[in-house]
Amino acid sequence: MERLKQAIMDRGSVLSKNVLKVDTFLNHQIDTILMAEVGEEFARIFQEEGITKVLTIESSGIAPSFMAATKLEVPLVFARKRKSLTMDEHVYASKVYSFTKQQESEIAVSKDFLDPGDKVLILDDFLANGQAAKGLIDIVEKAEAVVSGVGIVIEKSFQPGREQLVNSGYRVESLARIKSLDDGRVTFVESHAPVK
Amino acid sequence: MERLKQAIMDRGSVLSKNVLKVDTFLNHQIDTILMAEVGEEFARIFQEEGITKVLTIESSGIAPSFMAATKLEVPLVFARKRKSLTMDEHVYASKVYSFTKQQESEIAVSKDFLDPGDKVLILDDFLANGQAAKGLIDIVEKAEAVVSGVGIVIEKSFQPGREQLVNSGYRVESLARIKSLDDGRVTFVESHAPVK
Repeated sequence: MERLKQAIMDRGSVLSKNVLKVDTFLNHQIDTILMAEVGEEFARIFQEEGITKVLTIESSGIAPSFMAATKLEVPLVFARKRKSLTMDEHVYASKVYSFTKQQESEIAVSKDFLDPGDKVLILDDFLANGQAAKGLIDIVEKAEAVVSGVGIVIEKSFQPGREQLVNSGYRVESLARIKSLDDGRVTFVESHAPVK
Repeated sequence: MERLKQAIMDRGSVLSKNVLKVDTFLNHQIDTILMAEVGEEFARIFQEEGITKVLTIESSGIAPSFMAATKLEVPLVFARKRKSLTMDEHVYASKVYSFTKQQESEIAVSKDFLDPGDKVLILDDFLANGQAAKGLIDIVEKAEAVVSGVGIVIEKSFQPGREQLVNSGYRVESLARIKSLDDGRVTFVESHAPVK
């Protein structure tokens, strides 16, 4: 998605060879026009899948997912992050390890909001090691619902998340695929446009 | 806003005389059609204010704010909640006491995303004791920006938040105003429609 790539190049910051900061338009300040387009693009890509629910994770996943779910005319459910592993019979929960924070946390969705037979589109802001996506997939499958696809705003293609998900048979669609952040520059998969 | 009131009556749960649960359409599962209408209503109400930014707080504020900011054609900024009071020179921060959780936490916004002269619309899902709204107002004023209004999806009018904000001179617009949750029933201000 060209406008997204342009935003990454113009307004993102490469903090290290693993870390791209996009607080200016996605993770803290939200460029509403761009995120509306991102949501519409997800809706377009997955329109033939008969999606019944969009599932994301708080907080940065909510804005791009909101417009996708609106266009698909389905509810949006966001998984909650919990610091402590508390017992709660009425949720589907999964453990997620954060390589950035080097800690394990738990994500959870109320059993009220995922049903067997739901066709779920999982959306998230970033895909790197795939921990969050795998946690969301685990939750969907615990609910005996179907993962109809995984949509990602920004994929760090040099990390193993995408390959693992695709090898497990999931459809993964990322709107911007980053090949490398080496030397403080963003290089995209395919286009090879080196900027910054 | 009638459709919102109807959703509260049909799909909300009164857990106690202080607690209304709206996980079915606002706080966990999001009714995208209804939240898009909520956002459009905020945009309509505040359209003459010359808003330059919408400010909310993660996570439940993001969905209703997203459409408001999109319609107003301005960026959306969401304040981050932090458990620990960490030092960070580059944020505007404010302490917020949660009566529900009985603990103080901190909310913060990067200095990059609020500028002197910004006309800020503060939006949030609930208004009860006004702690979150006051924290957001504090952040806006630390940035030497202007609070152009406070928009609330659901106001618990029997708690003191609204009155305190209005007495301090802020414009407060709530789309549903709840007079009481006594006896397990929702009663709205004005309409007096007792349901559930």
